[in-house]
Amino acid sequence: MADPATPQIDPGRLLADLERLRSFGAQGRGVVRPSLSAADMAARQWLCERMRAAGLEASIDGVGNVLGRSPHPGKALLLGSHSDTQPRGGWLDGALGVIYGLEVARALRECPATSGLAVDVGSWIDEEGTFVGFLGSRSFCGLQDPALRDAARNASGESLEDALRAAGLAGRPLARLEPERYAAYLEAHIEQGPHLEASGLRIGVVTGIVGIRTFRVTFEGMQNHAGTTPMPLRKDAGRALVDFAARIHERFQARAGERSVWTIGSIHLDPGAASIIPGRAELLLQFRDPELGVLDALEAELHAQVAALDAAGPVRVRAEVSGHYVAPVAMDAGLLAHLDAAAERHAPGAWMRMPSGAGHDAQVFAERLPSAMLFVPSIGGISHDFAEDTAPDDLVLGCRVLTSAAVSILEETHRPGR
Amino acid sequence: MADPATPQIDPGRLLADLERLRSFGAQGRGVVRPSLSAADMAARQWLCERMRAAGLEASIDGVGNVLGRSPHPGKALLLGSHSDTQPRGGWLDGALGVIYGLEVARALRECPATSGLAVDVGSWIDEEGTFVGFLGSRSFCGLQDPALRDAARNASGESLEDALRAAGLAGRPLARLEPERYAAYLEAHIEQGPHLEASGLRIGVVTGIVGIRTFRVTFEGMQNHAGTTPMPLRKDAGRALVDFAARIHERFQARAGERSVWTIGSIHLDPGAASIIPGRAELLLQFRDPELGVLDALEAELHAQVAALDAAGPVRVRAEVSGHYVAPVAMDAGLLAHLDAAAERHAPGAWMRMPSGAGHDAQVFAERLPSAMLFVPSIGGISHDFAEDTAPDDLVLGCRVLTSAAVSILEETHRPGR
Repeated sequence: MADPATPQIDPGRLLADLERLRSFGAQGRGVVRPSLSAADMAARQWLCERMRAAGLEASIDGVGNVLGRSPHPGKALLLGSHSDTQPRGGWLDGALGVIYGLEVARALRECPATSGLAVDVGSWIDEEGTFVGFLGSRSFCGLQDPALRDAARNASGESLEDALRAAGLAGRPLARLEPERYAAYLEAHIEQGPHLEASGLRIGVVTGIVGIRTFRVTFEGMQNHAGTTPMPLRKDAGRALVDFAARIHERFQARAGERSVWTIGSIHLDPGAASIIPGRAELLLQFRDPELGVLDALEAELHAQVAALDAAGPVRVRAEVSGHYVAPVAMDAGLLAHLDAAAERHAPGAWMRMPSGAGHDAQVFAERLPSAMLFVPSIGGISHDFAEDTAPDDLVLGCRVLTSAAVSILEETHRPGR
Repeated sequence: MADPATPQIDPGRLLADLERLRSFGAQGRGVVRPSLSAADMAARQWLCERMRAAGLEASIDGVGNVLGRSPHPGKALLLGSHSDTQPRGGWLDGALGVIYGLEVARALRECPATSGLAVDVGSWIDEEGTFVGFLGSRSFCGLQDPALRDAARNASGESLEDALRAAGLAGRPLARLEPERYAAYLEAHIEQGPHLEASGLRIGVVTGIVGIRTFRVTFEGMQNHAGTTPMPLRKDAGRALVDFAARIHERFQARAGERSVWTIGSIHLDPGAASIIPGRAELLLQFRDPELGVLDALEAELHAQVAALDAAGPVRVRAEVSGHYVAPVAMDAGLLAHLDAAAERHAPGAWMRMPSGAGHDAQVFAERLPSAMLFVPSIGGISHDFAEDTAPDDLVLGCRVLTSAAVSILEETHRPGR
């Protein structure tokens, strides 16, 4: 059945490599492979070996990025994602896009009609933010804020620099994007949401990535004894936090766009004992939307609530941006047409265009290269959890779509007259 | 001026011993001397020496209690409190009652008219609950739940048994209350609240100690990605917690008695990251009141709110008692009359009767002996904080009142015909 003029992926090899990568840091059905951990470094070494076996020149750079470069001349396509995981993550989040890239490179190399085309493959470190989110793609694209990098620490308090030293990466050169080398950046990923499954579809062509804003809101009251301090005399930072959080949920509901999401994912009361009125409290509020105007409206609401509660007293309330401000990003229209065609070829009528609610390295690359993304379904919409999974048929289908799109993009790039 | 028939405390010695005890674990103006820490054990050794110098037979028992026993025959008075502190505590909370006991014993011994009276002094370990609250007084009174003792761990996860072994106390005998030995138990303490200071008074005669109930409320939702999970599909345990906490503050306000207090002192979201919808959340809700009926009404309100939120879904809500249920305790009426008279003698018109909003070892002793308590003012009502303090004149006055009350109680006990 195989057409000698068309590259064919090897489904068994693809799934075996995904399973092998899963084994680094495996815990039950889940994976614990945070950036620069021993499991993560072992996975990066293995990735280099697999890239070399696929004919790529592979190495790990001074921040932990793995880059496998094709020896072929001409405009190359850059494929990739991240191989680090959340603190308790799933096996496909990030890993899928890296192994797809490897399999696309192998499939093109093995087909006489495409064996001269250049495909580079990258694993961009710390998209998940164990130290600082999007570290690898920002470093590679020359977009990393040095102050954020210098201040980066993991949840145990270890600095990024110490972790790089412990991983044996200190002093290595940093790989840097050569924009003229590449025709485009493509990233495949699990959807991490319920939309494809709920619609009975198998492929998502990503139109854009939502903007993200995260704020740290702090409450300064007065710590005191929970038995002897009468209610009217209290300056309870925890109670102020609860009032604020309840109000945010109510007001954001009223202000939200159709695709808006907001989350209070972290709350700390200090000192955090049953018998002590919290003197200090803190929460992280994150909100996302594809539209800049909606993000601005939600942020205005946040500041209005902070100001109102602070003015009402007796607890002092402040909000500050946490980490990067992430702008909404549109994917490249030309690349979307290639992905649409490839999706329709392999999954006729079973794909759709959709935005991404999650952040991805592609939003960093979009500042430097024409970029696009492909989604496969997540069972139950679950990710960032040990239960994360995708049906094997969907894993294979997604790689076929990506391979076809890669070939048509490269062929268009190399077409005489361009 | 000194009447040779009346014992006189030595203010300089009293204040010097309070300052010396403060030096164990001192940090700035505060004290970090949690139960069984190196600083705490050094303080217990020093206390034994001071007790021996005061003519008491002193030792540390198998749980860390320090007991100094008088060699004199006849009914004894037992005085004491605790010498361990909160994680970041003040210098007087507990320490005051222990050093007052020591000074009362010395004053009576030095006065010919009272030198034959028996005063025992105790420092009951872990009233503050580094491992398990009221450990020492419950152990001494034979009221410790063995299951709670066996399960006791500090915030670092160290078990009580391991800490006792590390402190060199494993295998020592446990001191046990001999009820027939004692006429009464008296405990002096800082008020830890603002009432005396606000009223311009200097001594509080404690009528009773509030009841305390603490509940752990848990919220089970589903962890998921904060960017890709649409708001209507979320099972956000953190949002359910915020809804519940806001509702409790509103409903308890309506149900509370005049002296009721309630506190949400601890909140945890799991896993606690900005980009993850919390799958699990937990809070500690504590409430106190001198009246059993009010405690029951607040608890009924708590259970009603748990049931309502659990039934509304999609997050499962449960409440369970945390630690001991502490019943309201009345102080002994006969002892109160002695304390009233002593207060009026040394601070005429500058004292009042009042309940205690904080728990104290005296509530444990009240189950076994006639018991009573005396308060001195807390500056600004502050305690459980480095800023905790009391004016030196008030420190001296309180000890004079306690000494007079001790003498009159013992004299009444020994009066012929009783």
